[in-house]
Amino acid sequence: MTQQIDTEADLWVDIPQDTAQRLLLAALGLFARRGYHATSTRQIASAAGLSPAAMYMYFRSKADLLFEISRVGHESALRGIEAVVLPFQTPRDRMRALVQEFTSWHARHNTLARVAQYELQHLESRHYEEIAALRRSIAAVVRRELLRGVESGDFHVTDIGKTTIAVLSLQIDVARWYSSTGPWSPDELGLGYADMVLRMLSPAAVTQTR
Amino acid sequence: MTQQIDTEADLWVDIPQDTAQRLLLAALGLFARRGYHATSTRQIASAAGLSPAAMYMYFRSKADLLFEISRVGHESALRGIEAVVLPFQTPRDRMRALVQEFTSWHARHNTLARVAQYELQHLESRHYEEIAALRRSIAAVVRRELLRGVESGDFHVTDIGKTTIAVLSLQIDVARWYSSTGPWSPDELGLGYADMVLRMLSPAAVTQTR
Repeated sequence: MTQQIDTEADLWVDIPQDTAQRLLLAALGLFARRGYHATSTRQIASAAGLSPAAMYMYFRSKADLLFEISRVGHESALRGIEAVVLPFQTPRDRMRALVQEFTSWHARHNTLARVAQYELQHLESRHYEEIAALRRSIAAVVRRELLRGVESGDFHVTDIGKTTIAVLSLQIDVARWYSSTGPWSPDELGLGYADMVLRMLSPAAVTQTR
Repeated sequence: MTQQIDTEADLWVDIPQDTAQRLLLAALGLFARRGYHATSTRQIASAAGLSPAAMYMYFRSKADLLFEISRVGHESALRGIEAVVLPFQTPRDRMRALVQEFTSWHARHNTLARVAQYELQHLESRHYEEIAALRRSIAAVVRRELLRGVESGDFHVTDIGKTTIAVLSLQIDVARWYSSTGPWSPDELGLGYADMVLRMLSPAAVTQTR
């Protein structure tokens, strides 16, 4: 993330350790508020209390900052759902844990998630490929857990493709509308969404009018 | 939408009738591709084959174009779900029709829906209020149909607030990910989503591990 400081170390010897992080947070705030296109590198540097030249020691471009924000966000979400299912055996318990985690993650990190989700098209293509691979991994976890429940008979799924995208989509959209001043904490929302997803997957559910 | 042409009619007598529509489509394409902030009125006018001065005869500002796109989009979606439930009596049939319509609307009009959903924060405050009222009306239709099913015993809903937002959110997010080159037509997606929402609302659904 930060570049190696070799021969020119004396140029930024007094830049604090957390400068890269400060730049990322400044970029995140500006991208979220104004959008990627309308944010300049000068504004990012200035919001982080640096000169543009000092910023370039850490990130070569605005696109690199967007990539780093997006990468950190996607990796964090993926690690979260991978880890949270591990202690559980039954497909329902695993899916409940997954939805609680992924939903509350999007609520808790809604600014980061909004930028990571809605500014994707501005990534450079080599960066986009890396993020797309992380997104496929996240979708693969959801699909794997759905299939586990279908195989055991715990879940009824009419169409695995549509169900995978619906389960992902329901939770990703939390980033769009969630506000920390709203009625639900991230954990409360996660519990409610897990309940709704499990109801949707229940083999006992019926859809026809009596 | 178009301004009244009175004393200065001779200035734009040769502008075709559909100019306002052409400007709206040009703005929509640019907002979707580049974002609102990064699009200039000059670019919009040019994409519509007009001079900026000629554009101002139709729309006073870029913000007015965004408002008009957003208003048309929200009114169309609201009219759609209001109309589509009318022929049906049972809560399930009404909800199925609503979800089919609202989901396929977001797939069919995904560019318009994306701009209407994700550029909201750029609306001027008086415009924002008008769009917010339309959004409350859309949410009120979903909530009304949910309550109808709860009262009749056709639906089980643990939390009406969370369920209303989940049903809306699932369908709105279609605008983010849907592509006309993907595996499902808007109607196929609408059918699949209606099935999933009805399963979620089914009183027979169970969420606990056996």
